[in-house]
Amino acid sequence: MTSTDQSDGAAIIDLLGVLAYGELSAFDRMAADARMAPTTALRAALSAVAAQEMGHYGKLVARIEDLGADPQQAMAPFIEAVETFHARTEPRTWGEALVKAYVGDGLAADFYREVAEYVDASTRALVIEALADSGNSEFAIREVGALVRNDPTAASRLSLWGRRLVGEAISQAQRVAAERDALVLLIVGGAGDLTGISRLTERITDKHTERMTAIGLFN
Amino acid sequence: MTSTDQSDGAAIIDLLGVLAYGELSAFDRMAADARMAPTTALRAALSAVAAQEMGHYGKLVARIEDLGADPQQAMAPFIEAVETFHARTEPRTWGEALVKAYVGDGLAADFYREVAEYVDASTRALVIEALADSGNSEFAIREVGALVRNDPTAASRLSLWGRRLVGEAISQAQRVAAERDALVLLIVGGAGDLTGISRLTERITDKHTERMTAIGLFN
Repeated sequence: MTSTDQSDGAAIIDLLGVLAYGELSAFDRMAADARMAPTTALRAALSAVAAQEMGHYGKLVARIEDLGADPQQAMAPFIEAVETFHARTEPRTWGEALVKAYVGDGLAADFYREVAEYVDASTRALVIEALADSGNSEFAIREVGALVRNDPTAASRLSLWGRRLVGEAISQAQRVAAERDALVLLIVGGAGDLTGISRLTERITDKHTERMTAIGLFN
Repeated sequence: MTSTDQSDGAAIIDLLGVLAYGELSAFDRMAADARMAPTTALRAALSAVAAQEMGHYGKLVARIEDLGADPQQAMAPFIEAVETFHARTEPRTWGEALVKAYVGDGLAADFYREVAEYVDASTRALVIEALADSGNSEFAIREVGALVRNDPTAASRLSLWGRRLVGEAISQAQRVAAERDALVLLIVGGAGDLTGISRLTERITDKHTERMTAIGLFN
């Protein structure tokens, strides 16, 4: 699918806007969550993941400007949904912060991968570059594994937390979808009907389940 | 001066340790201060400066490891002084956050420049690289200028704030100096007497005064 008509152009700006604000808020929240780390080394590890989000943010904003749009205006429609997601999923423990970093990184990577197919070549290059940077949550996988081994009750608590994270993410995504028709049409890849959205949600939920299992949590 | 004897080795680890913890805490504090920004663009600008500190942190920690020392142990003696500095200089307004970013960046650059002369070649390369990244506070200069022009009382309030920042920085530096003899000897460049420290403090204070004047504040 090539992106030449007007609604596609608006949808690309929407897409870059939501991704950019997502990166900026991920930076902010992870930087704050890092304070809960039990050691300076772990605090630095999560801080470094947070810092990398700003690199992506900078590139997304530059692309929005290249397309002749205003980054602030492009992000504005998505601030409330993203902030609501974070307000409802504020970690209270270091374990919750780690699972959020891991789950959030995974969901973002899945979403980037899904949309990469439907965007223009330059936007695709940017998305692939952001994807290549993922896997920063390796330390989170290792640390969650250690927490779960050392505390048998942690697995069920953190599993519940993982479900809440993905539930809130889907709920905010649906809220955005209800308001941004062009964006939805872009993401479902011009399938022409909105069942594409539920299939996408299903694919992302399946991958989330795989990720939870991979770190010893259950869905 | 070459750094071959044992006390110099310990002093280099001390130096890298205080710089590393300084970068990590600057990241943390600026990320939090960014929330006070009046616009998303300004919030992103301060967040990007914060993110860059983690790049420096990573390099400093890698250098500590190359020298066969443990980064956590190297940073530990300086955590209290750095945290006390930040606790006593927590910005309450966006203007204070901007002045702190600008003054902090300047003081750090001065300190890096001073110590670059006295360290081994590899550490010097690292210090020079960190210095080359400075100047991120350009946007802070511009924004403080705008604040001061729009609100005549802001200049005197922010000038007082600038004095407090440099006063607390010197006070915490003195506290560290009193406890780390080898580090002090390294920094005064083997001058053999401790008057080197007061000359260094004077040079840094003079440059701070120049910087305050440059943005329309007074000392």
